[in-house]
This record gives sequence, structure tokens and C-alpha cells, in this order.
Amino acid sequence: MLEADLLIIDVNLATMDPALDNPYGAIENAAIAIKDGKISWLGPRSSLPEIDALATPIHKANGQWLTPGLIDCHTHILFSGSRANEFEQRLLGASYQEIAAQGGGIASTVKATRLADRESLFVNGKDRLNSLLREGVTTVESKSGYGLDVDNELKLLEINQLLNDHHPIDVHSTFLGAHALPPEYKDNSQAYIDLVCDTMLPLVAERQLATAVDVFCENVGFSYQQTKQVFERAQALGLKIKCHAEQLSNQHGSELVADFKGLSADHIEYLDEAGVKAMAKGDVTAVLLPGAFYFLRETQKPPIELLRKHQVAMAIASDFNPGTAPLCSLRLMLNMACTLFRMTPEESLCGVTRNAAKALGLKDRGILRIGMRADLALWNITHPAQLSYQFGIADLSNLWILGKLSQ
Amino acid sequence: MLEADLLIIDVNLATMDPALDNPYGAIENAAIAIKDGKISWLGPRSSLPEIDALATPIHKANGQWLTPGLIDCHTHILFSGSRANEFEQRLLGASYQEIAAQGGGIASTVKATRLADRESLFVNGKDRLNSLLREGVTTVESKSGYGLDVDNELKLLEINQLLNDHHPIDVHSTFLGAHALPPEYKDNSQAYIDLVCDTMLPLVAERQLATAVDVFCENVGFSYQQTKQVFERAQALGLKIKCHAEQLSNQHGSELVADFKGLSADHIEYLDEAGVKAMAKGDVTAVLLPGAFYFLRETQKPPIELLRKHQVAMAIASDFNPGTAPLCSLRLMLNMACTLFRMTPEESLCGVTRNAAKALGLKDRGILRIGMRADLALWNITHPAQLSYQFGIADLSNLWILGKLSQ
Ligand SMILES: [Zn+2]
Ligand SMILES: [Zn+2]
Repeated sequence: MLEADLLIIDVNLATMDPALDNPYGAIENAAIAIKDGKISWLGPRSSLPEIDALATPIHKANGQWLTPGLIDCHTHILFSGSRANEFEQRLLGASYQEIAAQGGGIASTVKATRLADRESLFVNGKDRLNSLLREGVTTVESKSGYGLDVDNELKLLEINQLLNDHHPIDVHSTFLGAHALPPEYKDNSQAYIDLVCDTMLPLVAERQLATAVDVFCENVGFSYQQTKQVFERAQALGLKIKCHAEQLSNQHGSELVADFKGLSADHIEYLDEAGVKAMAKGDVTAVLLPGAFYFLRETQKPPIELLRKHQVAMAIASDFNPGTAPLCSLRLMLNMACTLFRMTPEESLCGVTRNAAKALGLKDRGILRIGMRADLALWNITHPAQLSYQFGIADLSNLWILGKLSQ
Repeated sequence: MLEADLLIIDVNLATMDPALDNPYGAIENAAIAIKDGKISWLGPRSSLPEIDALATPIHKANGQWLTPGLIDCHTHILFSGSRANEFEQRLLGASYQEIAAQGGGIASTVKATRLADRESLFVNGKDRLNSLLREGVTTVESKSGYGLDVDNELKLLEINQLLNDHHPIDVHSTFLGAHALPPEYKDNSQAYIDLVCDTMLPLVAERQLATAVDVFCENVGFSYQQTKQVFERAQALGLKIKCHAEQLSNQHGSELVADFKGLSADHIEYLDEAGVKAMAKGDVTAVLLPGAFYFLRETQKPPIELLRKHQVAMAIASDFNPGTAPLCSLRLMLNMACTLFRMTPEESLCGVTRNAAKALGLKDRGILRIGMRADLALWNITHPAQLSYQFGIADLSNLWILGKLSQ
């Protein structure tokens, strides 16, 4: 006799399980059982084991589609201030130099974030998580990176922990101290990288404030050598490796992640085939960020065909941040991945479920399979491709996180 | 003594009133009074006339910004079926011809819409209006155009009336019988246009089912001459003139609208300066549709600089439809107008308020001014440019339609 805390019937499953070997890992006219926050059974309704129908709560889904809860595996939700004025000035004709001279750009966000108290940052973060939750998102990666000094980087990571404790979304914290050069270290990036490696990273590891490290490896960010220095220290301290790589030029950051057997290389518009091959060999996930591509009016697309050819897992994320992607919507990214990058709807959905879990090193979610977390999104749609095709319609019927109804 | 049904204080107004001659027609630290569904007073708080403070409900806005309710002046919300499969097939490599051969394209939407009962179309329409309402939209234009025979075109316009009666949004109905050629008239477009002119238009006018007519004037749609025939008949029957014009090529539809002193020419990516001048002379509003531009990956932008030079009013709309813009979000269009068309945040906001009202010929809304409808959106933002800059954050605090709280 199958025991369950909840049984969902009259449902179609997009399991995203590659073992099923059909589009979306679909099982139509299915049933799925939840026990103790995990999936305890799933399969065709006709194969459902005997169950105590009186003792088990049953949810009839009327033929709707169930997917894994969505995962936003690359975000910068913790910041203060708005860059709307800068956006407006640029559209009114101001140059990048003029805006920088007025203290605009990332410097303005760092300044506002340092000044912000913990409560306001927490409230901002919660509002942003709520927006994602309403779209069916159940796991969010949240990076530091707007503190850029010891106290403020730790402050942001501590707020991530608070959000994880007080919000239904499962928040995973990444330390991005090497996001940009703080004003105190102008013209001395090496001294800042030393601070990141010798002071920040040990504190982050000791206090278990993050599970991964990330670096902005770019000619306007940190060099290959500096990135390597951060990765070496982080790996020695037990942190996983991620990288903002090849967004504006090919700095070989993706190959470096592969050398470290890291989790993901993110952006990668300017990645070449050698880099793709290295990622494939190192089992590194490509995290594609169509929101930043759109907002920056980038024309160089990430090498989708090469990633397919070498079977690199492709994830998609919002990259929500105030400078290059002020778009707090993972559902919009599904459409943009198809429209702008020509990914298929199945690749897009896989990119915010199975492959997004892989980009975070999480083996317990992103697929509907027995034993996985019962993070489940039920959609009022007739085909899973609709999740990528249509945008703006409230098509999320229910959302469960660890088996608990959250929307 | 000022009498009011509601007084909003501690508020910043983006009136969008050109008479104020400052950005956004802004009045900071203002007050605004509503009486009988209209704006009865507004101005700086310091100028507020004496008011019976005990008898008047007062809403303190904590320094938030109030704008006119948003207006989506070009939509196709009434259709049945989904084109997600077609979207997926295209991304999997199917050609346009293959999809058409399988009955895809607009033909599939027409077929599904003809088969749909009124209730399901009403429910679809209501869901889409609800999505827009949650974004601060208070007026929506809704076109027919997926019936393409007498009964089904009238059915759609009647559902528009039902939606207007049963939904807080004010729905304005446009007859778009000349949207595409129905299968019954394949290779005989002139006979279909005669049906539109001689049978449909008189019924639409007699039953007061629409206030405006619209035609898809394009080499894949209807010719300049056919468009003119529809406009002549429509104008004789008292309908206002709108046109899907210059979307794929310059057919001079915009000049035709100007000749008829019509309301708007919509899309206009391929409009030239002569056409812009004609629009300026005829006081025709340009309705720009960045969602379709984005979804079709169009590269030819509408002639924004020329529209500015000749002072043609620019509106922005969602164009929500299943074929070329499955994006049911006017807020996203504010960002896309800036990002893709390089409009300023003020032009964008004007495009969904004052100029959108103009595109519908409505003189009672789109501006915060004494005597105008009390359609008001209150936003939790610190500057009106944020409405165009950020997307996906739930920043609508309250929405009033005719002075009645709707969100
Ligand atoms: Zn990022
Ligand atoms: Zn249209």
C-alpha cells in the first residue's frame, strides 16, 4: 500500500528526466505521490499502486501539466538603489563617461548597498523572491558582489541566509567579492584580489556563508590570473567554482572553470569551440543569460550550436541586477532564450529545471523522479511548449515547495 | 470648501500634462481629489483648498508616484487556441511552408476561434484583461479579426461588449474584419473585402459594436485600394479609422489614414519621411509595437527620429496576439520601447497614457487634470523612469478606475 501526504492525479508530467527518452520526459495521464517533502511515486495513472484513498489528500489537476519547480541559478537580487536615472540619462543622450563622472554605474549601486541597513536589503530581496515565486520559482541562487569590502560582502551573504530561513524559496548563496573593483582599490586590483583571497574567502568558508565562489573574469573585470588565484583559494576552502566568463571578450575563463571541475561558466557570448570542448570535458554547465543580452543590445549570441554539438548542459537564468538586466522574471527568460538565442522550448524548460540544478551542483531537484524534492509547479497549459511561448498570462495554478503548498 | 469622495495626499504626480511643461508634467508633494469618478482637484499640497477633513476619506501615499491609469491601445485579446506547437516546430527547424501546410499560422487561430463558444472566449479575454489590470492598465482596445465571417466577427465584438460590462477595465472595440483572408475567399480577396464593406460594416455600425475600424494593409494582407474601400465605407457609417500599416513594407497605409483624418497608424517600421509628414499633417498617432518587433526579430526600427522631428504623437501598445506577439504585458513594452527603439522613459510613459488615449480618440483620460476620469495608478517607485527601467517587480500599489479601487 502506497503511503502519501498528497496524491496528484489527472495530471500530465513534464518530468524532464532524460531516462524517459521522450520530449520533456513527458508522462501523460499520470499520477504523482508526495511523502515527507519528497516524490515517493510517479508514473502512468494506470500503474498507480494501491493507496488508502480515504486517508490520502488527493489533488485533481484536470489534465494540467506539472513540472519541477523552476530554478533561477544566477541572480544578483541583493542591492539597494535604482539605476533608473542613469537609464534615462543614457536614453537622453548622455555618454557612458558622463554617467561615470557623476558617480553612476556599478559604483552607485555599491555606494547605496553599503549605506543600506540589513532590514531594507532583506525587504528588497524578499520582494524580488516573491516576484519569482509567483512565476513558479522554488530555488534561487543569490550572489553577493555589491558590498566589495569585508563587512558589506559578509552582510549580503548573511542576508541571503536570512532570506533562506524566512522565505519559502530555497536560497543558495554565492560569494562574488570579485565582481568589480571597489573605489578604495582603484588602480590596485591585485591588492583587492589579495583581500578577497586572504581575508574574505576564509571568513566566508569558516562561517559557511556561501556554497560557491564566482568571479567576473573580463578585461573590464579581473584577469585570468586573478580569477585563477581566487579559484585556487576557494577550492582549497571547499567552495564550488562559478565564473562570469566570455561576456564581452574571450578571456578563457570558461576553460579555467573546466580546469577546476567547476559548476558553471555564465554568459559566454564570446566563447570559442576550444572553450566549449573544455567545458564538455570538465562537465561544466553553460548558464545563458538572455536578459543581459537583450538589455545590453548584444549581437554576439552564445555558441548554442557548439554547445549542442559537444553536449554541454545549457541552463538559463535571469541574471536580475540593476546594471545590465533589471528584469526580475525567469518566465520572460524562457521566451527570450527561444526568441533571441533560438533555443527550443524543451531546451529552455530544461535550462530552468534540470540544467539549472546542475549549474548549482544540486542533485536533489530539477527532475520529477522518485526521491527528488517535491518542488512542483502545476500549470494551466495544454502543452509544455506554452511555458516558453506565452508570457504575461497567469498560468501558474499551484506551487509546492518540499511538498508544501506555496502559491 | 472642496468636496471629494477621496483625497490622495503625500503623493507625487506624473500628470503627463504638456501644459505643465516639465518632465512627466510632474508635481511633487501634491494632492489630488476625486469626486463622482472624476478628478475634481489637483496641485501642490500647499495649494489644497479647504476641505472637510472629517467627511473626506484620505489616502496617504507616502511619497509614492501617481500616474494616469495605463492604456493598451492595440490588442488582439479575443482568440482561442495556442500557437505554441507552431513556435516549437519553427525552433526545431520546420519551415514556414511546412507549418502552413499543416494548417498552422493565422488559419489555425481562425479555426479555433470560430469553433470556440462565447463563454470560453469570454473567459480567455477576462484572463488577459486581468493580467493587464494587475499591471495598472485601466483602458484596453480589443480588436476582432479572428472570426473572418459575419457571425464570428460579430460574436467577437459582442464579447468585447460583455467584457466591457463585466470587467473593471474600460474596453474599446475595434472591428478588424480585414485582418486576413479567410479560407473561403482564398484567391478572391476582393469578394471578401466586399463582404466586409457591404455586410459586416453596416451591421457593426447599426448594432454599435465598435467605435473604430482597422485594416491590415500589407502585401501579405490587403491592398491600398482595398484598405481605402473599407475606410470610405467605415467613415460613412461613423466609425473612426485605424490601420496596421508599413509593418513589412511601405504600402502608404499611414498616408491613407492621414487622408481620412484617422486615429492611428500602427507598427510603421517601414514608414518614410513623406509618410511621417502626412501623419503630422493629419494629426495621426503613431502606435509603436515593440513586442511584435521583438518576437519577429525585426531589425528595421520605426522612424523614431522622424516622428520626433515632425512631432507625431507616439503611443506604445502590447499588440498581444497569438502569432506575432504572445506577450500579454504592457509594462514589458515600456522597457522594450526604451531598450529596442531607444525611446526615453518619458516618451514611453506618455505612449501608454496621453498618446494612447489620443490613439483611441479619447479626450477624457491619459492625463491627470481636473475633469478627467479618475483612472489612477499609484506606484511604489522613487522616480517615474523606473516604470520603463525595471520589469517584474510588483510595484503597483493601488489602482482606481473611475475613482473606484480596483487593485
Ligand atoms: Zn551576473
Ligand atoms: Zn495588431
